[in-house]
Amino acid sequence: MTDKARVVDYQGVLDYIAEAVRPQFGKGRVADYIPALADVDARKFGMAVRLVDGTLYTVGDGLERFSVQSISKLFVLELAMQHFGDMVWTRVGKEPSGDRFNSMMRLEHERGIPRNPFINPGALATLDLVMGLKGDTRHRLRNYLRFLAVDETVDSNATVARSELDHAHTNRALAHLMKAYGNIDNDVEDLMETYCFQCAMEMNCAELATAALPLAGGGYSSLHDTAVISKNQARRINSVMLTCGMYDSVGSFAYRVGLPAKSGVGGGILAVAPGRMTICVWSPELDAFGNSYVGTAALELFTSMTGVSVF
Amino acid sequence: MTDKARVVDYQGVLDYIAEAVRPQFGKGRVADYIPALADVDARKFGMAVRLVDGTLYTVGDGLERFSVQSISKLFVLELAMQHFGDMVWTRVGKEPSGDRFNSMMRLEHERGIPRNPFINPGALATLDLVMGLKGDTRHRLRNYLRFLAVDETVDSNATVARSELDHAHTNRALAHLMKAYGNIDNDVEDLMETYCFQCAMEMNCAELATAALPLAGGGYSSLHDTAVISKNQARRINSVMLTCGMYDSVGSFAYRVGLPAKSGVGGGILAVAPGRMTICVWSPELDAFGNSYVGTAALELFTSMTGVSVF
Amino acid sequence: MTDKARVVDYQGVLDYIAEAVRPQFGKGRVADYIPALADVDARKFGMAVRLVDGTLYTVGDGLERFSVQSISKLFVLELAMQHFGDMVWTRVGKEPSGDRFNSMMRLEHERGIPRNPFINPGALATLDLVMGLKGDTRHRLRNYLRFLAVDETVDSNATVARSELDHAHTNRALAHLMKAYGNIDNDVEDLMETYCFQCAMEMNCAELATAALPLAGGGYSSLHDTAVISKNQARRINSVMLTCGMYDSVGSFAYRVGLPAKSGVGGGILAVAPGRMTICVWSPELDAFGNSYVGTAALELFTSMTGVSVF
Amino acid sequence: MTDKARVVDYQGVLDYIAEAVRPQFGKGRVADYIPALADVDARKFGMAVRLVDGTLYTVGDGLERFSVQSISKLFVLELAMQHFGDMVWTRVGKEPSGDRFNSMMRLEHERGIPRNPFINPGALATLDLVMGLKGDTRHRLRNYLRFLAVDETVDSNATVARSELDHAHTNRALAHLMKAYGNIDNDVEDLMETYCFQCAMEMNCAELATAALPLAGGGYSSLHDTAVISKNQARRINSVMLTCGMYDSVGSFAYRVGLPAKSGVGGGILAVAPGRMTICVWSPELDAFGNSYVGTAALELFTSMTGVSVF
Repeated sequence: MTDKARVVDYQGVLDYIAEAVRPQFGKGRVADYIPALADVDARKFGMAVRLVDGTLYTVGDGLERFSVQSISKLFVLELAMQHFGDMVWTRVGKEPSGDRFNSMMRLEHERGIPRNPFINPGALATLDLVMGLKGDTRHRLRNYLRFLAVDETVDSNATVARSELDHAHTNRALAHLMKAYGNIDNDVEDLMETYCFQCAMEMNCAELATAALPLAGGGYSSLHDTAVISKNQARRINSVMLTCGMYDSVGSFAYRVGLPAKSGVGGGILAVAPGRMTICVWSPELDAFGNSYVGTAALELFTSMTGVSVF
Repeated sequence: MTDKARVVDYQGVLDYIAEAVRPQFGKGRVADYIPALADVDARKFGMAVRLVDGTLYTVGDGLERFSVQSISKLFVLELAMQHFGDMVWTRVGKEPSGDRFNSMMRLEHERGIPRNPFINPGALATLDLVMGLKGDTRHRLRNYLRFLAVDETVDSNATVARSELDHAHTNRALAHLMKAYGNIDNDVEDLMETYCFQCAMEMNCAELATAALPLAGGGYSSLHDTAVISKNQARRINSVMLTCGMYDSVGSFAYRVGLPAKSGVGGGILAVAPGRMTICVWSPELDAFGNSYVGTAALELFTSMTGVSVF
Repeated sequence: MTDKARVVDYQGVLDYIAEAVRPQFGKGRVADYIPALADVDARKFGMAVRLVDGTLYTVGDGLERFSVQSISKLFVLELAMQHFGDMVWTRVGKEPSGDRFNSMMRLEHERGIPRNPFINPGALATLDLVMGLKGDTRHRLRNYLRFLAVDETVDSNATVARSELDHAHTNRALAHLMKAYGNIDNDVEDLMETYCFQCAMEMNCAELATAALPLAGGGYSSLHDTAVISKNQARRINSVMLTCGMYDSVGSFAYRVGLPAKSGVGGGILAVAPGRMTICVWSPELDAFGNSYVGTAALELFTSMTGVSVF
Repeated sequence: MTDKARVVDYQGVLDYIAEAVRPQFGKGRVADYIPALADVDARKFGMAVRLVDGTLYTVGDGLERFSVQSISKLFVLELAMQHFGDMVWTRVGKEPSGDRFNSMMRLEHERGIPRNPFINPGALATLDLVMGLKGDTRHRLRNYLRFLAVDETVDSNATVARSELDHAHTNRALAHLMKAYGNIDNDVEDLMETYCFQCAMEMNCAELATAALPLAGGGYSSLHDTAVISKNQARRINSVMLTCGMYDSVGSFAYRVGLPAKSGVGGGILAVAPGRMTICVWSPELDAFGNSYVGTAALELFTSMTGVSVF
């Protein structure tokens, strides 16, 4: 952290990375379980850095929106913690799962309590909790993301949501299994529709970096001009991201990148450097674990060039 | 990290904690699988903080040696990385296991490659690698710990080692299973003896805090006056500690404490605050996951009082 | 089998058993996951023996109808084999599962192909196949059971079916998971309704013994005056019953009773002694594996008194 | 069973089968985990039928000895039941495992109690029990098999036993794991040596058919002129063979062949038709489950030609 004083040319770093990762294109694979995602241009690459003082740096397609997918889980967890505090952890654990992101096996073993809020069953349980709040949950989610992104045009893509809903067999199975254990309150189809709406939200790298800024600022963000969450909650959400945010490769990601982060199959990865900045990268091709292949490489390069790492 | 500038009265913090944790005694359970460990006084409590500048603070039984047990895995991993670099990761993974610390199940699923170097099979694979180096491995381990602790009297307790060896059925099973998959080179009994020797090393909180100082200093430590490991390696070992160091409660520990740490069934927990300090706590009673009950509470209090956390 | 020539007083045996099992009442537990089943009188006990020549013996409540539940799986498998032959085994295995009757875990491991047609996911896959036939499946099932029971009043209990449907979360999860793997063709809700209709069929011991007679007669039954299935199919269905028919206690049941059998949570067990007879017993209290506690004891007594066993 | 009266030309059936299976050679794979087994001529084929009246029919290499391997588990179970009765089942279960023959996973889940005596850990637990009897267990095993085979030259092959011992890592792991759970009394190396001695016994098809005759005769055999085991025990051992004797393909084997049987990786399969006969077949090439490929086909042909089946 001694490099804190150093003046880093973040724009230069981003420009360098955007060039340096080019040879990695083609090594991953765009998510193709729904046509709406499969159609994305595989060579898109964007990145954004937002310092805690509000300064923004972007490169490439950093201002083009993409499907946030599982990155949305981070913000739904935030909502749940704002409203329910530590009660959230009676519905979902906070341990890495050690299994693929939608494993039934572990869910069955642990009697319907998902391992953490970032695997699918955990995200469903978290959303189910938020759906217990008064009012339309989809409006709430959209409004919250608009507030976090400081942009009133942020929205969910109805085509993507519909397509996800048609292919949500595994998620339905997870939800029904949790319901069998009494860990889902809402109607499963309502839950599925809201979940698909949530995953189909579209934001760009800059907006996501903005949205996560309170996590870098101990809950507070000058851009939002308020304590979005408490200092303690920011810290704890960061810890859950680091130990559970990257599916079954949290260890490798922490080893290579060293930052709390959450990825989505849309190809985005949103990382937080507590006290310093947020970083978001987008590149649609995924590795075997479902994380952006080039995005991970870009973040590794970023932390190795700048020394920004929690370790 | 804004509290960095603040002058913290670490001695006062330690004194306060030593008092504050008293009501927690009796809530955990001393490891009793071997008599040598079961005989330890359950109410021992010691703590030590070593700043990167070398300053030491201790409280309670912080200068009394105890059985380091699994904390030794951290230093054997360090040795392995010094000699074999990233080749280590062909023999052992770096992902949290999601299972009890000695699970056969996962080992079988993953064809003899343990999930990480901090669960028993992973520690055995790492030690097996180090045993491939020329010379007596027990001498090497003892010398390395004496060097790290800056104390020539550090040694292994032969009674404890012998007793562990008599009860090492599960570890033998793990070693034979890995051998069946070709992931153990040495004779299993040789490996078991060396492993029990390693676990039976005895050090006190101050010595352990000293031994880990290079991990807080980017590989370098003023006390050792040398770069013990590379900056990159220090960072990476810290990341493996954070995601895998606390058995099946890495997520909860990161949530509560927010520091890379490694625990042992002797009741010790050794934590690293990169760039700032190392902290070691000792209290023999364990929680359900095999981590020190009071030790975890003490560390949580420490990070919440001082703001020292990677998140 | 040397006792074949012996003239056995089957009525006397049944009368003796009905007395002898009385002290076993209260040791099991009536299925209570739906009210319609929980309300059954726990002390009901009926038994029926149907020899291949058509002779019928009954005792106790042997003529009172009860919910056949999983015993229906046997007849749906029969239907599937009549129409699809060995093609059935591309959709479902024929190995014992070694796990609880509704395990997701194994289903996930084996990529959506259930272990056998007698665990719930296997019964769902089998029914899904039958639903591919032209016409209303519920009519088909009811007509087939009426034909087998030689009684036109056999029917499904709509209250039970509705109640099951309300509690079918786990089965829905299983069906959606199989659909995710492409092993369910029909709409999941249609499948669930048909499945609950099937399980809610009501028959008495005499009717079930009659319905299974073709399985004892090499496919042929004098009562039905036709070869209901082929000799080979009868043999094979019996083998699947013996290795998979009693949930996770097939080994113990074969050890104690020694006959192919299928049980249901309504408390019925239907057994086949190839070449000789069928035996059906009903007693609502279940053991830990979901099989009738007293029913198993009664069958063990029957085979030990008469020497009727495949071993 | 109506074919019982039919006079079957068993010699003709065996001669026909020996011809008919020829096209199946080359479809399986000889066990190659130790050289001593890998060297066997893949095209060996022998078969023997022993009727309960003592009549013997053989074909091909039916009088050439081979390594009995896991078929020995059947006779060790017999020994254990003779001496310990139902107490055997406190040390080992009698349910099919649903997993590969040497799964650690299930053993760990079920706290050191193997699923049945025919998977490796179960055979080790059974042998461990027999080793508790006074006297040298290897002598006891050899003498028992000589008595059963009615041949004083039956012996264990020391080269095979030694070679197995060198490759017994997985079995050692299983034994140590069971010892950790308190389910192995003897020294693990003693157990391993005795187990390898047992598996390396060599017998031919005729001898194995003779050895199993008491299981077909309700415990009694005219050749041995004594009740080797009780009628009840014979019945029960047959049931355990049918539900657990063919590793992870018990269901398929029961479906195709319909007889209790035990196989070995030496290529032998020993089957029992209760009340009628024993049948042994030998062909070294194995299928994916570790059962003789051609042997299974030969037995299927035998039961389909003769109608000899328990179903």
